[in-house]
Amino acid sequence: MENLVFNYFIPTKILFGPGSLNRLKDENLPGKKALIVISAGTSMKKYGYLDRLTAILKEKGIEYVVFDKILPNPIKKHVMEGAKIAKEEKCDFVIGLGGGSSIDSAKSIALMAKHDGDYWDYIVGGTGKGKVPVNGALPIVAITTTAGTGTEADPWTVITNEETNEKIGYGNQNTFPTLSVVDPELMLSVPPHLTAYQGFDAFFHAVEGYIAKIATPVSDMFALKSVELIAKYLPLCVKDGTNIEARTYVALANTLAGFVESTSSCTSEHSMEHALSAFYPDLPHGAGLIMLSEAYHTFFASKVPQRYIQLARAMGVDVDSLPEDERPFAFVKAMKKLQEECGVGNLKMSDYGIKEDEIEKLADNAIKTMGGLFEVDPYKLSFEETVGIMRNAYK
Amino acid sequence: MENLVFNYFIPTKILFGPGSLNRLKDENLPGKKALIVISAGTSMKKYGYLDRLTAILKEKGIEYVVFDKILPNPIKKHVMEGAKIAKEEKCDFVIGLGGGSSIDSAKSIALMAKHDGDYWDYIVGGTGKGKVPVNGALPIVAITTTAGTGTEADPWTVITNEETNEKIGYGNQNTFPTLSVVDPELMLSVPPHLTAYQGFDAFFHAVEGYIAKIATPVSDMFALKSVELIAKYLPLCVKDGTNIEARTYVALANTLAGFVESTSSCTSEHSMEHALSAFYPDLPHGAGLIMLSEAYHTFFASKVPQRYIQLARAMGVDVDSLPEDERPFAFVKAMKKLQEECGVGNLKMSDYGIKEDEIEKLADNAIKTMGGLFEVDPYKLSFEETVGIMRNAYK
Repeated sequence: MENLVFNYFIPTKILFGPGSLNRLKDENLPGKKALIVISAGTSMKKYGYLDRLTAILKEKGIEYVVFDKILPNPIKKHVMEGAKIAKEEKCDFVIGLGGGSSIDSAKSIALMAKHDGDYWDYIVGGTGKGKVPVNGALPIVAITTTAGTGTEADPWTVITNEETNEKIGYGNQNTFPTLSVVDPELMLSVPPHLTAYQGFDAFFHAVEGYIAKIATPVSDMFALKSVELIAKYLPLCVKDGTNIEARTYVALANTLAGFVESTSSCTSEHSMEHALSAFYPDLPHGAGLIMLSEAYHTFFASKVPQRYIQLARAMGVDVDSLPEDERPFAFVKAMKKLQEECGVGNLKMSDYGIKEDEIEKLADNAIKTMGGLFEVDPYKLSFEETVGIMRNAYK
Repeated sequence: MENLVFNYFIPTKILFGPGSLNRLKDENLPGKKALIVISAGTSMKKYGYLDRLTAILKEKGIEYVVFDKILPNPIKKHVMEGAKIAKEEKCDFVIGLGGGSSIDSAKSIALMAKHDGDYWDYIVGGTGKGKVPVNGALPIVAITTTAGTGTEADPWTVITNEETNEKIGYGNQNTFPTLSVVDPELMLSVPPHLTAYQGFDAFFHAVEGYIAKIATPVSDMFALKSVELIAKYLPLCVKDGTNIEARTYVALANTLAGFVESTSSCTSEHSMEHALSAFYPDLPHGAGLIMLSEAYHTFFASKVPQRYIQLARAMGVDVDSLPEDERPFAFVKAMKKLQEECGVGNLKMSDYGIKEDEIEKLADNAIKTMGGLFEVDPYKLSFEETVGIMRNAYK
């Protein structure tokens, strides 16, 4: 029986499609002085995205300050720094421009710009103190230049506490962006391997949200469409990054996967990956998920076979022509094939320095810091089973 | 080529599913004193829905005033009256409890409670003066007891100007409900024929939003799912109104059709129907749509055959087994069959007093008052073609 009692709430206004950054001109922005949050890398400047944004702000008479320190796996220190600047400069809204790391940081900065104390005081899970942030958050504008996290369409922000090696997701109704821009033209410059990692991040948001036991008919709709579009268009983006139609459909799949995260939930696959990249911050999140995926989904395919049959169908597999006992695993096969087509079929944890004898520690971290996601798994994993999946994934 | 540049904006929080009215207790309501808008009929009192709502408000320490004059085809006079009471009583939000007429009225009252002058000053189309309502609107809570208009999930409100016989839809970003409750338990008491009329209203919102030339991949997703669910579950609701599972899926289809109205648009079928029920207010809107539907969709199936083939697929028709030239019309056949299964296969305009020699006047009214919807039709109808469709529908 499906879950037929649920809440639907995605208040973000999304400007979607090629050329949408220019359409920002016609929008009411939610403040008079912005903190623009971008990465410590050079892309936003090199490709002119920052200049285009600041030109629009100037035209609209909006002041801004740029904070350009965000790392690929963003850390608490930079959230605190950004929030301090936002307070000192009296910014009344925050713009995240870039990938998930910049937008997530913008969300967390928007929260801390209206609260005292440490960001981890408000985090739920791990050593977080779970305080309720009573003042809300500054309004957030998200301009995404990647198709991976779906953060432009959900309330979630994932920050690493670099002091404790905890990478934990957080969000509430005030950390939805007020306004998001999803302009696939800004994604044309993402190199093939990052396109693949990010695309698979979106893919797993959809897949996990589909198997999660809190999935609903509405989240299912978003999830299956997202999986369908990624299976069809991600290889085309990896092969030819300038294919704007393919980029647009993958961007749409990513936004839909964000809707899945807003209406269902990631599962423990994400907890396990957060443990990997909390200890090994050079490991891209999407790559970590890909490494875990075969072992993880083979395990769960035997627990909720019907869900995996639908996922395989969404990927275009002619499931009905297969022997019945193979059907639940058709998804894993199709996923492996998709990974190969995208040039990410042979990623290994050892390539990033992860050692086999750390698996228990990593599994423990996954459960301790992001234990909540294990609660929405369609089958409750024991510690031993968690270790087992991660060990199989290590091979 | 699909429309790949679009905006997505549905800020309403929706509490969906059986028992959701009780869940309203746990929500922050957007004010301290509510104007509760209900129909002039007895249902809201008889079935105890009003008492349940006021009990919740009392428990939350929220004051209220009840305005109980709304007609099935709601009129401007009652919008003005409701707004006057809201102002005098210093209500700071409006609750619409009931079917589309009560919720639409609540939206229009919420607008006029913050503006001077006449409601028609702000209407765009017909004799409306198109003034911009600069003060926004009071927050709106929608509690729907029918599955038909989708108004709980869109910004639209349809009011008839009884002085001019104009029935015109209006909406802006402030007329989305802040919070909506879709509790199928409140729909169990709707009698079979109204269940069918309302279900078909939702059905046509989805169908029209799917053929509209501004449809997007996102609105398509909502539309096809809505059509699928109505085809499957509406006959079950008509047959046995107490079937809570069927009621829930039809309620979901209706909310999804509301999403379609928020992300795409109705087409001229709705303009034509508004003309009918503006002059004949006893004609239920859904019944009017059913009367128009065969002629209307037969005409458009020849214009955008691919869209109609997908609609037929969504209704469960095995389109691929049909001869190619029959495929576009498979939808109309399935729709007629669905109407028969729901006991509404033989509705006639003459039963409501409409005369054949009025068709030109009605077509003229449709174009003059709701001409905007003709602009999103996938093919631009001439006046003669509009008359032709309405004449065919009359037979």
